[in-house]
Amino acid sequence: MKVIGIADTTFARFDMGGAAASELKSLGTGFRIVRYTVPGIKDLPLACKKLFEEQSCDIVVALGMPGGKAIDRQCAHEASTGLINCQLMVGKHIIEVFVHEDEAKDEKTLAWLADRRTREHARNAFLLIFKPEELGRNAGKGLRQGYEDAGRVRE
Amino acid sequence: MKVIGIADTTFARFDMGGAAASELKSLGTGFRIVRYTVPGIKDLPLACKKLFEEQSCDIVVALGMPGGKAIDRQCAHEASTGLINCQLMVGKHIIEVFVHEDEAKDEKTLAWLADRRTREHARNAFLLIFKPEELGRNAGKGLRQGYEDAGRVRE
Amino acid sequence: MKVIGIADTTFARFDMGGAAASELKSLGTGFRIVRYTVPGIKDLPLACKKLFEEQSCDIVVALGMPGGKAIDRQCAHEASTGLINCQLMVGKHIIEVFVHEDEAKDEKTLAWLADRRTREHARNAFLLIFKPEELGRNAGKGLRQGYEDAGRVRE
Amino acid sequence: MKVIGIADTTFARFDMGGAAASELKSLGTGFRIVRYTVPGIKDLPLACKKLFEEQSCDIVVALGMPGGKAIDRQCAHEASTGLINCQLMVGKHIIEVFVHEDEAKDEKTLAWLADRRTREHARNAFLLIFKPEELGRNAGKGLRQGYEDAGRVRE
Amino acid sequence: MKVIGIADTTFARFDMGGAAASELKSLGTGFRIVRYTVPGIKDLPLACKKLFEEQSCDIVVALGMPGGKAIDRQCAHEASTGLINCQLMVGKHIIEVFVHEDEAKDEKTLAWLADRRTREHARNAFLLIFKPEELGRNAGKGLRQGYEDAGRVRE
Repeated sequence: MKVIGIADTTFARFDMGGAAASELKSLGTGFRIVRYTVPGIKDLPLACKKLFEEQSCDIVVALGMPGGKAIDRQCAHEASTGLINCQLMVGKHIIEVFVHEDEAKDEKTLAWLADRRTREHARNAFLLIFKPEELGRNAGKGLRQGYEDAGRVRE
Repeated sequence: MKVIGIADTTFARFDMGGAAASELKSLGTGFRIVRYTVPGIKDLPLACKKLFEEQSCDIVVALGMPGGKAIDRQCAHEASTGLINCQLMVGKHIIEVFVHEDEAKDEKTLAWLADRRTREHARNAFLLIFKPEELGRNAGKGLRQGYEDAGRVRE
Repeated sequence: MKVIGIADTTFARFDMGGAAASELKSLGTGFRIVRYTVPGIKDLPLACKKLFEEQSCDIVVALGMPGGKAIDRQCAHEASTGLINCQLMVGKHIIEVFVHEDEAKDEKTLAWLADRRTREHARNAFLLIFKPEELGRNAGKGLRQGYEDAGRVRE
Repeated sequence: MKVIGIADTTFARFDMGGAAASELKSLGTGFRIVRYTVPGIKDLPLACKKLFEEQSCDIVVALGMPGGKAIDRQCAHEASTGLINCQLMVGKHIIEVFVHEDEAKDEKTLAWLADRRTREHARNAFLLIFKPEELGRNAGKGLRQGYEDAGRVRE
Repeated sequence: MKVIGIADTTFARFDMGGAAASELKSLGTGFRIVRYTVPGIKDLPLACKKLFEEQSCDIVVALGMPGGKAIDRQCAHEASTGLINCQLMVGKHIIEVFVHEDEAKDEKTLAWLADRRTREHARNAFLLIFKPEELGRNAGKGLRQGYEDAGRVRE
C-alpha cells in the first residue's frame, strides 16, 4: 500500500487539496491519502518533510496559490527552493502545484485553473509511483497542466 | 508540556515579540514560552536553530520588520531562505512573520499591522502543535494575517 | 560498464531525451543508458538523485525547455540550483541542457537548437567519463553548445 | 575564556577589522580575538567556518564592503546566503557587517559609516555571548547600526 | 607538499587555467598543480568537489568567463552559490575568478583582464595556504584583481 501526501494552505483561495484527493481517488487503488494543511506556501517544505518522515509518504503533492505581487513571487521562489531541497534530502518526489493569482483574467477562470492544474498534477504524482513508463511515452510532447498543452515544436 | 519559541529583533520598530507572547498566553495552556532577541532578521535562522536545539522548542515564531528598500527585500529573502533551511534540518515548523515597512500607509497603520499579523500567526503556531485539524478545516479559504482575508475565489 | 542517465520532461516541446540517447550511442561503447521522464524541470534534481542512487549512474544528462516568461526563468533558476546541490551531495556530474523557448526566432530553429545543444552536451557527458583529457585540450577555447562557438578572444 | 573571530577582506576600503577589534577590547574582558583576512566577501563564509572549526570561535564578526554595482549586490547576496548556511551548520552566530559603497554620499561619510556600523555590530556580537538579556530589553526598538536609530513606530 | 587545484571551462574564451598555472609556478615551490576542465561554469562546483576529494587539493582556483546576457548572470549566480556551498561542505577555500564578458570594452582588453585577474587571484590562493599573514597586512586596503586597486577610502 503506497501513501500519497497532500500538503495545502489556508492562504489559497481554492480547495486545491480537495481537488487533488478527488482526482487521486478516481485514478485507481493501492494507495491511501494523508492530508496536512499549513498557513502558507513557505510552510510547505517542512509540511512535506513531515509527511515523508512521520507519515511514510511515498510522494507528496504540494499545493499553493501565491498572490500577484512581487513579494509573492519571492515567497514562491523561496518555497520552491525549499521543496527541491526537501526532495534531495528525502529522495522522494514532491509535485509542486502553484497557481499564481495573476495567471487568470478573472476569479472564475482562476478557480477553473486551480482545479484543473491540481488534477492534472495529481495524475502526474500517481503516474510517477504507479506508471512511470506513461510519463516516458510523453517525453518532449509539450504537456502543460491547467491551460492547454503547448505540444511538440513544429519542425 | 510543549515549548514555543519567540525570536525577534532589535531592528524591528514594534514589539512583535511582546504581541506574540500576549496572544499565545490568551489561547490556552500546556506550553511555556522561550524568548530570544537578535539584532536583525538575518540573525533569525540561527536564533531559531538555537531555540530548537538548546531550548527544546517544538515550534518557533520568527518575527521581523524589513525596511522598505531593495536591499531590505534582499535581506528578507536571505532570512526566509535560511528559515526554511533551518526547518528542514530540524524537522519542526518556524512560523515566519515579516511586516515590510512599505506595507502600511503611515506609522499608526504599520503598528496596527505588525500587532495583528503577529497575533494571527501566533495563533497559527498554536494551532499547528495543538489543533492542526482546525487549519485543515480552513484549507483553501483565502485566510490572511494582518489585512482582511481574501476569501474563496468566486466561481 | 558505465551507466549514463538521461532525465527529461513531458513539458519540453522536443524529444531531447531521444536526441541524447541517439548521440551517446554514436559515440562509443562501454556504457548503458537509463532514462527517466518527469513532468517539468523542477522535478529534475530529484530525478537525477534517483538515477544516481537507484540506478547507479556515473553521470546524468538533465534536459529541459523552460518557457519564455519571467516565471519560467525563475523555475529554471530553481531547477539549476537544485541540480548543482544534487551534484555536491552525490559527487558526480550532471550536465544540464536547458533550451529557453525565447532563444530561437521560430519553432523550426528551436527544434534545431534543442537537438544540437542536446547532442553537443551529450558528447560532453561522454567525454567527462571516458576522455576528460579532450575537454582539457579545449580549455578556454570559447566552445558553445547549440549556436556556433564564440572562439578565443582576439588578443 | 570565549573566542571572538573577526573575518575581513583586502577588498574593503576601510580597516573594518581594526575597528571591530578596537571596539571589542573597549567592551570588556573574558575573551580573546582571532583575526582572519580573505580577498573578498564571497570568501567570508568559509573563513567563518574555519574560525569556528580550527580556532574554536564562539561567534564571528564578518566584515565587508561590497561595491555599488548590480554585480556587487549579487556577490553580497551570495556571501550573505553562505554566511547564514554556515551558521546553521555550526550552530553559532555570525554577525554580518556589510557597508555598501553607495550607502554614503562621499568617501569621508563612507569611512565614518564603516567605522560606526562595525563598532555597533561588534557590540552586538559581544552582547550575544555575554549579555543577551540586554538585546532582549531592546527588542522592537528600531535600533540601527551606522546611521541613526529608526526608533519605535509612532502609534 | 600542498596540492593546488585549477578548475576551468571550455566555455571561457581565454586560457585562464594556463595563466593560473603559469603564475602559481612563478610564486614558489612546495606544491603541485592538478587541473580539471569542465564544459561551463555551472559544472565548476562539482569539479572543485572532485578536486578536493579525489585529488586531495588544499585549495582550488575556479575560473570562468560568463557571457554578457541576463541569463549568463543568472548562471554565474548559480555557480557562485554552488562554489560557496562546496567550500562549506569541504572546509577548504575555492578562489572564484569570474570575468564577465561585458566588463571590457573590446576583446583585447578582455584578454588582458582575464589574464591579470586570474594571475592576481592565483597569488591570493597561494597566499591563503602559504602566507596568510600577508593578506592580513592588506586588510581594508581596497585591493582589486584585474583593474587597478580602489585603495583606502579618503577620510
